[in-house]
Amino acid sequence: MPEPTTKSPLPPRSVIGILGSGQLGKMLAQAASRLGFRTHVYGDDAGPAFDVATSHSVGSFTSFGRLDEFARGVDVVTYEFENVPVVAAEHLALSVPVRPGARALAVSQDRIAEKTFIRDLGIAVAPFAPITGPADLISAATAHSTWGTRAILKTARLGYDGKGQSSIAMPSDLASAFRILGNVSCVLEQRLEFRCEVSVIVVRGIDGETATYDIPLNEHEGGILRRSTVPSGLPPAVEQQARAMATRIATALDYVGVLAVEMFYLGETAPEPLVVNEIAPRVHNSGHWTMDACAVGQFENHIRAVAGWPLGDTARHSDAVMQNLIGHDVDAWPTLAGTPGTCLHLYGKREARDGRKMGHVNHLSPRCP
Amino acid sequence: MPEPTTKSPLPPRSVIGILGSGQLGKMLAQAASRLGFRTHVYGDDAGPAFDVATSHSVGSFTSFGRLDEFARGVDVVTYEFENVPVVAAEHLALSVPVRPGARALAVSQDRIAEKTFIRDLGIAVAPFAPITGPADLISAATAHSTWGTRAILKTARLGYDGKGQSSIAMPSDLASAFRILGNVSCVLEQRLEFRCEVSVIVVRGIDGETATYDIPLNEHEGGILRRSTVPSGLPPAVEQQARAMATRIATALDYVGVLAVEMFYLGETAPEPLVVNEIAPRVHNSGHWTMDACAVGQFENHIRAVAGWPLGDTARHSDAVMQNLIGHDVDAWPTLAGTPGTCLHLYGKREARDGRKMGHVNHLSPRCP
Repeated sequence: MPEPTTKSPLPPRSVIGILGSGQLGKMLAQAASRLGFRTHVYGDDAGPAFDVATSHSVGSFTSFGRLDEFARGVDVVTYEFENVPVVAAEHLALSVPVRPGARALAVSQDRIAEKTFIRDLGIAVAPFAPITGPADLISAATAHSTWGTRAILKTARLGYDGKGQSSIAMPSDLASAFRILGNVSCVLEQRLEFRCEVSVIVVRGIDGETATYDIPLNEHEGGILRRSTVPSGLPPAVEQQARAMATRIATALDYVGVLAVEMFYLGETAPEPLVVNEIAPRVHNSGHWTMDACAVGQFENHIRAVAGWPLGDTARHSDAVMQNLIGHDVDAWPTLAGTPGTCLHLYGKREARDGRKMGHVNHLSPRCP
Repeated sequence: MPEPTTKSPLPPRSVIGILGSGQLGKMLAQAASRLGFRTHVYGDDAGPAFDVATSHSVGSFTSFGRLDEFARGVDVVTYEFENVPVVAAEHLALSVPVRPGARALAVSQDRIAEKTFIRDLGIAVAPFAPITGPADLISAATAHSTWGTRAILKTARLGYDGKGQSSIAMPSDLASAFRILGNVSCVLEQRLEFRCEVSVIVVRGIDGETATYDIPLNEHEGGILRRSTVPSGLPPAVEQQARAMATRIATALDYVGVLAVEMFYLGETAPEPLVVNEIAPRVHNSGHWTMDACAVGQFENHIRAVAGWPLGDTARHSDAVMQNLIGHDVDAWPTLAGTPGTCLHLYGKREARDGRKMGHVNHLSPRCP
């Protein structure tokens, strides 16, 4: 069904609807309010975004009645996480623009669809074998044998922060790992020897205008992002290639908003220096440094895009290291608050559980020429 | 009555109470939420701060019953404007810390008290004559004659953005101007020949720690701030003197929070190169550039101070020009939104009336060494 509205920019005081009440929804709402928008956050529970939204609703993402009420009070809908049910996005799109659209959700919710889509654009992904049922285990094991390396088995759907993954040393481990992950659709991926992980935060406007941020180097621990550093130290030609790859993906999806593209860097001499790991159709943890080190950060640029506005300047004025505050890391806030050059962001969550993202800090330093 | 709480910092999720629902209250609430605080805005009408506050109340500033309800739900109270009735601040302080305190309000609400206070600190103010009633007109006219310049008659209370002021060419104009201003308490001030207007945004923490921002050069039109530029171009020694003056005032008031000190610069060879014009016990329009050009802006530093936190880094990473969007200036938002290096802030007010502050833009450029 075609989008029912024109592409003229939403004026200030319009209401931005946000699906999801977590920290990304909170920072989206804050960015929207800076531009004079009001916000309505819809979440399946009362998360930190409720504290800053103009209004909020609790409801399931599959309750069409509640979603209809929500849709009546907003001028556009966006979302903070890629696991919004596609049916919810499609249902909302009957009455209000949903940006990014349901297609981006559908592609990014399924690793098999995602990898196939990216590969079909001529962009490198890690060699993979889809496993949609026990019948695929043999062909996947055969593929694994040809790679000659360890592999990772990932559930095709609903994985995040390293959840739903299992490391596979030998093809014979595959069947039991598949069973442990619940016999659900999976993808077996070659584990690549990479130099580092980076990501491209690209934003695409309603008219097809695109912009990218400088590329952060990302360090993970236990499957969770710990730290993003800009500049990344990637060779300039590689940075340029990474930006071009992310932009090509956003354009091929006819995407509106911020899209994050995670990549492995395998070294300049590798046949494919950059390999796409995964995409996220939303603002991204590895872009949190943009809030303090750029004229216009990722959250505001996402809001600008979904509101049909011109994109903001992504130029970086400072070098930055973003560090996540995970679980009880956040207890160090009194010290962090007093550290020079430090921008502190606390999400205001009630309880610091292990592995829970409680906040982040951006350490700024003068930009090296 | 002594403050009933200790000076330990308020933990995240504490509730910051803000008196006043205008754009300053909005930006204070946004800064508070970045640190994980919740907010409760109390306003005598529904202003833009209501759009971003966790909760809000409409009530008069003299309704003690409503103020008591408000006080019960917050951990500290601050305010966005200096015309909060002192009785309201004093009443609230019976049950909850009010920062800055009632004393700063009392001093800054009355130009006679303010100028006397500053002069008694040994800090230069423009020569002035208080006029508390018709009996003072003759001595004021005599003072005016000795100055040999034009003068300005200002109401002692409730003036802002050039309101409640009258230019006086000759002593004989005084009586009628006093009548036109309503026969209320006034102060007659010598109009100084100044090179430029500047301001110091100083923040003082609960333990007496102070920090200042770089000094903006301020340009007014029709009594309203149009533009603030950093760096100001003031000689370094003069900048240093300005910072010291503002810090001395904050310390003498035992101040907690952001204090703005407006000054005239009369030139390095003047007997007093810097003369204080007025102070504002709050975040200030001439400090709006700090939101985008510093690690920690004035709004967050005000919240840090009133919450008993360490102050944030006031270092400036970029050069900046802040331009106010007044009345229908705001209609240019689609163009401004697309201008490189531009950070746009719209307050989300319903109607663009003449003289009404609707938003501001911060134009950033790389910091000149």
